[in-house]
Amino acid sequence: MTLKNDRLLKALTGKSVDVTPVWMMRQAGRYLPEYRATRKKAGDFMNLCQSPELACEVTLQPLRRYPFDAAILFSDILTIPDAMGQGLYFETGEGPRFKKVIKKRADVENLREISAVDDLAYVMNAVTLIRKELNGSVPLIGFSGSPWTLATYMIEGGGSKDFSKAKTFMYNDPEAMHLLLEKLTETVIDYLNCQIRAGAQVVQIFDTWGGVLTTPGYFAFSLKYMKKIVSKLIKQNDNNDIPVILFTKNGGQWLSEIADTGAHGIGIDWTTEIGAAKRLVGSKCALQGNMDPAILYSSPKVIREEVRRILSDFGSKSGHVFNLGHGITPGVDPDNVTVFVDSVHECSAQYHI
Amino acid sequence: MTLKNDRLLKALTGKSVDVTPVWMMRQAGRYLPEYRATRKKAGDFMNLCQSPELACEVTLQPLRRYPFDAAILFSDILTIPDAMGQGLYFETGEGPRFKKVIKKRADVENLREISAVDDLAYVMNAVTLIRKELNGSVPLIGFSGSPWTLATYMIEGGGSKDFSKAKTFMYNDPEAMHLLLEKLTETVIDYLNCQIRAGAQVVQIFDTWGGVLTTPGYFAFSLKYMKKIVSKLIKQNDNNDIPVILFTKNGGQWLSEIADTGAHGIGIDWTTEIGAAKRLVGSKCALQGNMDPAILYSSPKVIREEVRRILSDFGSKSGHVFNLGHGITPGVDPDNVTVFVDSVHECSAQYHI
Repeated sequence: MTLKNDRLLKALTGKSVDVTPVWMMRQAGRYLPEYRATRKKAGDFMNLCQSPELACEVTLQPLRRYPFDAAILFSDILTIPDAMGQGLYFETGEGPRFKKVIKKRADVENLREISAVDDLAYVMNAVTLIRKELNGSVPLIGFSGSPWTLATYMIEGGGSKDFSKAKTFMYNDPEAMHLLLEKLTETVIDYLNCQIRAGAQVVQIFDTWGGVLTTPGYFAFSLKYMKKIVSKLIKQNDNNDIPVILFTKNGGQWLSEIADTGAHGIGIDWTTEIGAAKRLVGSKCALQGNMDPAILYSSPKVIREEVRRILSDFGSKSGHVFNLGHGITPGVDPDNVTVFVDSVHECSAQYHI
Repeated sequence: MTLKNDRLLKALTGKSVDVTPVWMMRQAGRYLPEYRATRKKAGDFMNLCQSPELACEVTLQPLRRYPFDAAILFSDILTIPDAMGQGLYFETGEGPRFKKVIKKRADVENLREISAVDDLAYVMNAVTLIRKELNGSVPLIGFSGSPWTLATYMIEGGGSKDFSKAKTFMYNDPEAMHLLLEKLTETVIDYLNCQIRAGAQVVQIFDTWGGVLTTPGYFAFSLKYMKKIVSKLIKQNDNNDIPVILFTKNGGQWLSEIADTGAHGIGIDWTTEIGAAKRLVGSKCALQGNMDPAILYSSPKVIREEVRRILSDFGSKSGHVFNLGHGITPGVDPDNVTVFVDSVHECSAQYHI
């Protein structure tokens, strides 16, 4: 089926577009009253992720309100460790937690091997259902956490402030950490390939915690494995058919090396200037980002000015996917998102003549 | 009085040293059992800060164990807003909180103007006492939070995950934010000058939260004010007599601009390569850092290797003050700090022949 709106795919592969495509990380989220209603109906957060119908519903909600140029699968970043037997659960207001935590090499060796198509069938069912419901209107983005980011949660047992457990594990037994990352890498490749077969047209890897590493640590323990994922995905999916986006939060210092992975797009957070990033990566890949999500708490005037500033900083070329520098936060007024999306479309036309 | 150990002052002013000087952010802290005992005796955390005798005691504790090349005043980063009438208090396990929070421009206009010598006399008394007790053994570092960092706490009412209140305030009423930052800047200058007059021989400005801003936001709302502080301090203290160190956590993308402030030293966190930073700032200023504090959770062998790697990355020049990339964390084994400090001294000699 031909896509009615293929701006995202075009921008990610350097083809020209009429206006800059835009979507938002966490666009299916708590800032939307309809999301909160569905979430309430689902009860537990994991029920929401594990019901293909409810996951499809919340994925489509922002598309009904805003002319986004892409949908992104609603799911949790930690489905893989959960399927591996770590026992994911959510404490109210506390974020994700695992019942089982990796403490030593034997825990890594004993991890359950999974087959995404069977063990994460609920994700694939959601992807297929969303793709069907989208009916070719916009592309569907699938995603996974990066191996390093998944590993931090599995060792910390949840979120962390200073990642002392994950780093202690890494510094004291780098081989066991590499074994864990190898296992996660193979699983992420399988997981993303299954999402692609189920209908995902773009995939993004969220490396939320790569930015807490030293430079050599980032290259050895995070980027190396993302590069492997990118290469294998590209090989296994008729080369450039399915664009891959890598997003390392706080990765602004490593954009050159991230671009060298061969990924089609790099997500950048708001601390990096997109114009400088563009000069750095050249035509190697597209850039995605990078408005500070906090701008959405301000006024329509300020939002529009910031969109204009970022567009102008990127300049007159294709290869830009507009997004926030991180996920939208729960307290944002949904009307401000209208201003954001409309501003991107209206103000970007002049750069694509 | 001549300093018996002036390595820190020499390294910060580009003079040659026998070995690389080393100190640690938060070296007077919870990882030390003797600190925890004094803290317990003091009861409330603010009592510990406000008693010159107790503040002096915990400042000196790490010096009794380790051959650090500097002492740093024990105090809280939020003494200024507290003196301005915001009512600082600490909830167990929750970090700092303010009774009064800045919500609108009028709150900024109505802030109490303070005179550091009177309103923060307890800090100056601690400085004088510590300086006397040090008896010329090592230099004493005074410090302050940066205007931007202080402002975030004053608007958020405490710590924050996404700084949505501080950023909303900044984006919606930038003029009121600048007014707040101007007021804080004048107060920080007064505060640091008083510390210098009381005996501080180096001062450091902690810009803990500058790294959450966009690049233009960082320049306009944080760096601009730190630059003003540096210029005025240098002018008011016989030019280069009192070295100033600026430390912006997650500021690795802005080192060139930070170096242009005229500060004598720049603190860098562990995400930036110190060799690359050195090539960027050249001989404009010294660099301080940048070992990942989490390395201290590992083994003596790993600690020593990482110290060696950082020293080798910096290379054969003066202008390096060894430190962690952020404060030492509470769970570290004090014996590993011995390994850290000794490794810096032992392994750095070869770079200073």
